[in-house]
Amino acid sequence: MTKSSQSVLQIFCSDRPGIVAGIASFIQERGGNITQVDQSVDSENNTFRMRMALEPSSSDFDLEAFDHDLQTFASTQDFGFTFYPANQRSRAAILCTHEPHCLHDLLQRHEAGELDCDVPLVISNHQSLKPVAEFFNIPFVHIPVESDNKAHSEKVLTDVLAEHKIDLLILARYMQILSPEFVDLWTNAIINIHHSFLPAFAGASPYRQAHERGVKLIGATAHYVTVELDAGPIISQDVVACSHRDGIPDLIRKGRDAERTTLARAVRWHLEHRLLVQENRVIVFG
Amino acid sequence: MTKSSQSVLQIFCSDRPGIVAGIASFIQERGGNITQVDQSVDSENNTFRMRMALEPSSSDFDLEAFDHDLQTFASTQDFGFTFYPANQRSRAAILCTHEPHCLHDLLQRHEAGELDCDVPLVISNHQSLKPVAEFFNIPFVHIPVESDNKAHSEKVLTDVLAEHKIDLLILARYMQILSPEFVDLWTNAIINIHHSFLPAFAGASPYRQAHERGVKLIGATAHYVTVELDAGPIISQDVVACSHRDGIPDLIRKGRDAERTTLARAVRWHLEHRLLVQENRVIVFG
Amino acid sequence: MTKSSQSVLQIFCSDRPGIVAGIASFIQERGGNITQVDQSVDSENNTFRMRMALEPSSSDFDLEAFDHDLQTFASTQDFGFTFYPANQRSRAAILCTHEPHCLHDLLQRHEAGELDCDVPLVISNHQSLKPVAEFFNIPFVHIPVESDNKAHSEKVLTDVLAEHKIDLLILARYMQILSPEFVDLWTNAIINIHHSFLPAFAGASPYRQAHERGVKLIGATAHYVTVELDAGPIISQDVVACSHRDGIPDLIRKGRDAERTTLARAVRWHLEHRLLVQENRVIVFG
Amino acid sequence: MTKSSQSVLQIFCSDRPGIVAGIASFIQERGGNITQVDQSVDSENNTFRMRMALEPSSSDFDLEAFDHDLQTFASTQDFGFTFYPANQRSRAAILCTHEPHCLHDLLQRHEAGELDCDVPLVISNHQSLKPVAEFFNIPFVHIPVESDNKAHSEKVLTDVLAEHKIDLLILARYMQILSPEFVDLWTNAIINIHHSFLPAFAGASPYRQAHERGVKLIGATAHYVTVELDAGPIISQDVVACSHRDGIPDLIRKGRDAERTTLARAVRWHLEHRLLVQENRVIVFG
Repeated sequence: MTKSSQSVLQIFCSDRPGIVAGIASFIQERGGNITQVDQSVDSENNTFRMRMALEPSSSDFDLEAFDHDLQTFASTQDFGFTFYPANQRSRAAILCTHEPHCLHDLLQRHEAGELDCDVPLVISNHQSLKPVAEFFNIPFVHIPVESDNKAHSEKVLTDVLAEHKIDLLILARYMQILSPEFVDLWTNAIINIHHSFLPAFAGASPYRQAHERGVKLIGATAHYVTVELDAGPIISQDVVACSHRDGIPDLIRKGRDAERTTLARAVRWHLEHRLLVQENRVIVFG
Repeated sequence: MTKSSQSVLQIFCSDRPGIVAGIASFIQERGGNITQVDQSVDSENNTFRMRMALEPSSSDFDLEAFDHDLQTFASTQDFGFTFYPANQRSRAAILCTHEPHCLHDLLQRHEAGELDCDVPLVISNHQSLKPVAEFFNIPFVHIPVESDNKAHSEKVLTDVLAEHKIDLLILARYMQILSPEFVDLWTNAIINIHHSFLPAFAGASPYRQAHERGVKLIGATAHYVTVELDAGPIISQDVVACSHRDGIPDLIRKGRDAERTTLARAVRWHLEHRLLVQENRVIVFG
Repeated sequence: MTKSSQSVLQIFCSDRPGIVAGIASFIQERGGNITQVDQSVDSENNTFRMRMALEPSSSDFDLEAFDHDLQTFASTQDFGFTFYPANQRSRAAILCTHEPHCLHDLLQRHEAGELDCDVPLVISNHQSLKPVAEFFNIPFVHIPVESDNKAHSEKVLTDVLAEHKIDLLILARYMQILSPEFVDLWTNAIINIHHSFLPAFAGASPYRQAHERGVKLIGATAHYVTVELDAGPIISQDVVACSHRDGIPDLIRKGRDAERTTLARAVRWHLEHRLLVQENRVIVFG
Repeated sequence: MTKSSQSVLQIFCSDRPGIVAGIASFIQERGGNITQVDQSVDSENNTFRMRMALEPSSSDFDLEAFDHDLQTFASTQDFGFTFYPANQRSRAAILCTHEPHCLHDLLQRHEAGELDCDVPLVISNHQSLKPVAEFFNIPFVHIPVESDNKAHSEKVLTDVLAEHKIDLLILARYMQILSPEFVDLWTNAIINIHHSFLPAFAGASPYRQAHERGVKLIGATAHYVTVELDAGPIISQDVVACSHRDGIPDLIRKGRDAERTTLARAVRWHLEHRLLVQENRVIVFG
């Protein structure tokens, strides 16, 4: 687990000799100590990708100066990067509708310290889960969605998110489809849990589809939301065994366990800056 | 595990009171002892399905008479049934092409006594796996398949299967598509291993498809073969975790483990008469 | 899943021909319809064990008369049985201390209808989890345990349980050891979750023990409580992968997921009357 | 997967700033390109551990010179290291007795290219598995072990291993206990598969022990052999679900699947130089 006192640096570029040495020296010279590295090269397309966790090794280490110098360094060395300074905590909003299990699970984990972020608000198009948010002392915002006026709802949503400086949206069984315009503004910043083993059973009623096909494992998939429904980059997947004795209600019950753990795992990885999207695939750094 | 000294009876019909009592009394009166029952009712369509294992409780028990009486009993009581007498061992042929792992695994399990059947022959459209069959002392039959004369090959195949009284075909990575005419003659008697988590990635190159979609679990599916490709009733499925570090060769390697165990499990269940197909779904009796 | 409109009958005795027929006819004659059977014989010790779910097939079916006749029938036929009539719902008390995750999970599942029982009260030796119980509208009873006066606490506990007609105790990370005298009164009626893969790491600090031994999977075990610590019959077990990067806090976090699902599964099976203990081993009927 | 054209470098020392930079620069200056890094710090004891895979980035790269310079560099910088040059393939001997499943599996994987090593010989204290070795064209050496003259057998074994320049011993269900003197000479170079989820059920007849305890999962553990029986550093573990219906023969059958995959995985990781033992725990680099 990456401690919250650690900054994280992700680097991606075409592979060439000397990148690790260059970055590591850059960090050392500025008073940083590298505590974790996961680096690999995708030989299919010669892509270099690396995640480093670092912490100050001396009082000289200055996060802002580091960030500034890094920008210059990256442009001279021609690599892409994202830097997540230790002092900037993510701010996540959880969106939900009627199903309580994922919301409950996330808030309980958040309370237990498993999720390293602030959760300034829970948002729903219905009122039914308000008590859950309140129990965990998280402000609850009700944004109704009228089928003939979705644009208005998204406008309200956008304003609320801006007001609370949200940088991550977690769709915890949120039963509304966000517009392409909205999704485009939140690239790799909306995590959804789909209740099937994607790409099998995309779309509506996946447990019904699974039952009809007679599969022997049902699954859950956490993915970043993109404009195409249920086709975004997959972050995490899990399965649960089922049998002919399981009717659809049993599949729904069993599936909830996979949904909970899969969504929570994906969110945790996102918050630990372990995720990097390349060509619609997610790299999960160890 | 059902011992090979036990006969197995499968019953299926619309549910109504008294079926268990009727069958159980029928068995008792003829000198049979019931050693296993798995029965359930599918409340969605009111279907009764039951598997019983039985063995003689007295020297009076006569398998042939039992079978004969059962037929009469079933027609008066209006239920469907299949009876697998203890003295009739399945005869399975394994079909393969170039990939050795499933063939090896099945023959090794067969030698270890895990698969309760005779394997009178291994059949392949190529010669490369002949040594594997020979090592296990199983006759190897080479039936080449010419793309412009598949009908001829299937005719040869049909004759060979008839000659050896085969009742189960195991497609252990057999890289040929059987004709609808052939498949229709072998309903619920051909088990195939598909190297994906069906219904995801049906058809060719499932590992390539999985790699492109960026899934985090790859799978294997053992199913009965039907006319529609990769759409037959699913018997067993399994998954293996994978990551962005896995290229297609890694997925192939990892997938083999799931293929081996999934296929072997499906074959074992079939041989223990645990499988019943209803409406393109497989009931797996415990 | 067994519907709550169904009664459940468990039968156990030495195996001999005719038991299934005898019981099934007994049920049919009294207007019952068998909807599920799981029966098997343990050939090692010739033990017959069966679980049947049944529901009324006619208005003649009388639960009380059935129960009464069954007692007579069992003594003439010399088999052991337990009958769980459909109209008698289990009453479970959850005991906990400081850790909220299992309590939360159980109450959330109970609210979702996953656990077919009443939960008349949550009991704790501390006050910290009171808000969780209150959120789910379950009365909370604080029974402090003084190390020098455990007998008194157990007396209070016993009275509370009697007053609320409790028949199942769920130890959801309850950090007190119950006395042998108490445990003897609750045979196969106390379910505990131990945070290791028993019999490995019994006793205190199992995650610390696991870390020191360097295991690659950590586990959770739900078991019935017996006088010998962590040695009772095992109901359900699960594991989670871990690595050298996981410190003890990570093992604790990962282990919680296994604890939650394992405990909930064991409780659900108990409530569905799927469990039968024989010689310190648990039979889990399908 | 690490390609066989890559050299691997493992580094371990107390953590301090600049190690990654130092090593990476050292590699770059000598014409090496780093293609994989997995580095972490164990904060409990401030230990730095890193695995790097590297390949030549220019024709200047000289493996021997690199190895030589590295030794000097390590002593000036005070870190421990092991360097596995790309051109040195491991040489593994497989030891077995009567059980064929692990031997078969390993040799089949070796033939399929899954295990990057030479297997110059299979060694057994019995003759029964000779045909398996011969089928895969691996020389078979029979070294009988007399209970009253084990020292002699180990002397013969030692000579055979030396003659064939073996650097890894794989105990594929080898039913002999090696002497402390022998084991001491093969530190972290003997991999054994134990058929239980260690530390549960160490010693003889683990499946019998598991059956008696009534566990719901059985396991397999691959570990390095140390003087204390079944107490060596754990490399990999796996489990398989079991039930009350499984007698000991069923556990043995089910367990084989876990034994095969667990042992093969451990061997593959060893051969890819992913394993580092510290304080009786195995670090598995990603």
